[in-house]
Amino acid sequence: MSFAATILTLYPEMFPGPLGVSLAGRAMERGDWSCEAVQVRDFAKDKHRTVDDTPAGGGAGMVLKPDVIGAALASVADDRPILAMTPRGKPITQERIREIAAGPGLTILCGRFEGFDERIFEAFPQVEQVSLADIVLSGGEPAALAILDACIRLLPGVMGAPTSGHEESFEDGLLEYPQYTRPQEWEGRTIPEVLRSGDHAKIAAWRKARSEEDTRLRRPDLWERYSDARDRPASGARRKD
Amino acid sequence: MSFAATILTLYPEMFPGPLGVSLAGRAMERGDWSCEAVQVRDFAKDKHRTVDDTPAGGGAGMVLKPDVIGAALASVADDRPILAMTPRGKPITQERIREIAAGPGLTILCGRFEGFDERIFEAFPQVEQVSLADIVLSGGEPAALAILDACIRLLPGVMGAPTSGHEESFEDGLLEYPQYTRPQEWEGRTIPEVLRSGDHAKIAAWRKARSEEDTRLRRPDLWERYSDARDRPASGARRKD
Repeated sequence: MSFAATILTLYPEMFPGPLGVSLAGRAMERGDWSCEAVQVRDFAKDKHRTVDDTPAGGGAGMVLKPDVIGAALASVADDRPILAMTPRGKPITQERIREIAAGPGLTILCGRFEGFDERIFEAFPQVEQVSLADIVLSGGEPAALAILDACIRLLPGVMGAPTSGHEESFEDGLLEYPQYTRPQEWEGRTIPEVLRSGDHAKIAAWRKARSEEDTRLRRPDLWERYSDARDRPASGARRKD
Repeated sequence: MSFAATILTLYPEMFPGPLGVSLAGRAMERGDWSCEAVQVRDFAKDKHRTVDDTPAGGGAGMVLKPDVIGAALASVADDRPILAMTPRGKPITQERIREIAAGPGLTILCGRFEGFDERIFEAFPQVEQVSLADIVLSGGEPAALAILDACIRLLPGVMGAPTSGHEESFEDGLLEYPQYTRPQEWEGRTIPEVLRSGDHAKIAAWRKARSEEDTRLRRPDLWERYSDARDRPASGARRKD
């Protein structure tokens, strides 16, 4: 079964774009996934094909019209999840990516300008408002490409080594450990001794310790969640300070 | 002065990709920014142009070689910031995007496979290890496109209305308020009365309240930081529970 992605966008020419080459491109050629980019403007009802209008209550920019976006969403009514890319959304997680990648595909609605008319989300409560990062993009398209890429690499048969979806950042709540490869010495810097020991238990312990240390230093937010869970494995109630 | 982006990548054909059209594409045509994609493989020293090798200590996947990546980084030594896209990095922020957009440009080093040899970051301490989101991509390229897009829209003259860089998500630590536009009534749903009142103070108060409410519900992480700062505007010391 192929993973079917539908993108609702004002810029269908952006897709598959970077996903047409490399890992994702080869997977697309094999038929592991497909990408349909739908021009939202085709759902406009007037002769000027208007998709946006000024914000109610004033302010800069333009807002995507509910009737146009509503018609676009109605055109893809099926059992695939629908993600609307918006900085007002909940941050996407690797856990959600994994769920989506295990399903039949997804629809991504890309915002532009000052965003969507809020009534869209009342009329289509199944739409998940999702943000990619705490930065503001010119539109949802670059975010959609990143989300799609994250899904595609998890599809069966897409990654070269079947194990390299595990032991990586976020999968166990920690950042991945640092990596090293040949040459053994490079510009006076050597690979840590333990990694050359051949002692698998020692290597695993070193990696775990480095994962924990780097997570603590770089991602106090992940570290807090991880150490809370580790310290209270059996407790149902989460600590509330 | 034009904003100069250099991308170090194994897939230069992915650039400018989606940034060659729309807002970013027009800005590029005007000369507001430029994009040079450099093939990292060209810095390999052997006849097979090898860029990766197996991880020291074992494990799945391949690691980018320090000598190759080091040579690629050395080739762009200048005063622009260098970002290495890696899930092990610190999350990119809108504040950092704003700083970068105000400068001469940036270099983005895209990871692939199991990532970089850690010695790269010891030899080039000026390289910022940055992550886009808590999801794992097949490589840094989709993340680089998102970061570039976020920078480009902030360049002088790129956005249509000069004010629409403000009053948006993350700029003041809150999510943006919900937006509405015509039609006044759509599928039985009307635009909130207050937005049609013409009372600017009332509208601003409503929007602020909705920003705060949505941030609290959707982004408890942002909300905690925001309310901490709001409750302790004069205090130098941050509360530690």
